[in-house]
Amino acid sequence: MPPVALALLHHPVRDRSGALITTAVTNLDVHDIARSARTYDLAAYYLVTPIEAQRVLIERILSHWRDGAGARRVPERSVALSICHVVPSLEAALAHMQSAAGQRPHTFVTGARPPEGRSVLEPPEARARMAEAPSLLLFGTGHGLAPQTVAEADHVLAPIRGAASYNHLSVRAAVAITLDRLFGDAGARGEL
Amino acid sequence: MPPVALALLHHPVRDRSGALITTAVTNLDVHDIARSARTYDLAAYYLVTPIEAQRVLIERILSHWRDGAGARRVPERSVALSICHVVPSLEAALAHMQSAAGQRPHTFVTGARPPEGRSVLEPPEARARMAEAPSLLLFGTGHGLAPQTVAEADHVLAPIRGAASYNHLSVRAAVAITLDRLFGDAGARGEL
Repeated sequence: MPPVALALLHHPVRDRSGALITTAVTNLDVHDIARSARTYDLAAYYLVTPIEAQRVLIERILSHWRDGAGARRVPERSVALSICHVVPSLEAALAHMQSAAGQRPHTFVTGARPPEGRSVLEPPEARARMAEAPSLLLFGTGHGLAPQTVAEADHVLAPIRGAASYNHLSVRAAVAITLDRLFGDAGARGEL
Repeated sequence: MPPVALALLHHPVRDRSGALITTAVTNLDVHDIARSARTYDLAAYYLVTPIEAQRVLIERILSHWRDGAGARRVPERSVALSICHVVPSLEAALAHMQSAAGQRPHTFVTGARPPEGRSVLEPPEARARMAEAPSLLLFGTGHGLAPQTVAEADHVLAPIRGAASYNHLSVRAAVAITLDRLFGDAGARGEL
């Protein structure tokens, strides 16, 4: 199976009004998403922000948990954070993954609302595509990925629908559910 | 369908060594889990802590987002947090739900490791039980629910297995995945 990785974009993402913004990195996005990515055996978790000061901050957080006092106190956190990479752009994440996997990854976008005019992939179809090439799953902070990022993506994952008309999951919850639907144990789903 | 609710316990829960402790409430546990619970149409989300100062703090956070400046700025957050109840004990959550639903709820515990000697319910079996009576799903902070809480529960949900030997999901991720497995849209699962 070719590697699958995940990128969390802090730019370009939408705000409430649809304007393109850069969001600040949330500490728990580093930890929670690394733990989920590691649990579902992803090859890498790219934290994407163009702001250098934010990248320095995340690297310092990672260092504490990977090599510092945090690693001694909570060793399993070190294991999760070992797959994190801090990069300035989506292109940098793609280039890093290409150099590691020997092939440019296909991109899969996610979001609460599917873009108009694009067909969406349910988990079994997405897994079939992922068997063909390295894959990078893109998640947006703020109010979601920029339209251009979605338009340029190779594939669109079917949105998560819950059981209510309300649909405002946190990105941390959306990542967890998406990974479970794609890669969760056979017992819950019977199709892996 | 009888109501289903969720309780996040901060006491009694285990620490790394298995000792019983009381954890501090994490702000994002309030928001993320409320949003997930609302998305999957739960009737209530009980935040359980015996520490009065913590309950006062959570009530202040809730007030900001339900009635204050936060509600005006992010109205959908107000909708999610409207289902939150801050209570001092699991018993108080059960009593509140019993008075609202007219019947004492059955409890379902969750956790990374199933307790020895108990049979566990996969999602279809759990849903069948939930059709019979009001249900309260129990999640633990720290390193998980106390053994006594597990022993006294009516049912045990099958643990979430990912795709790796690593299995250290955050409670926020575990809640999201559990709710999606139990109540997610039919498209991803075909059995609801």
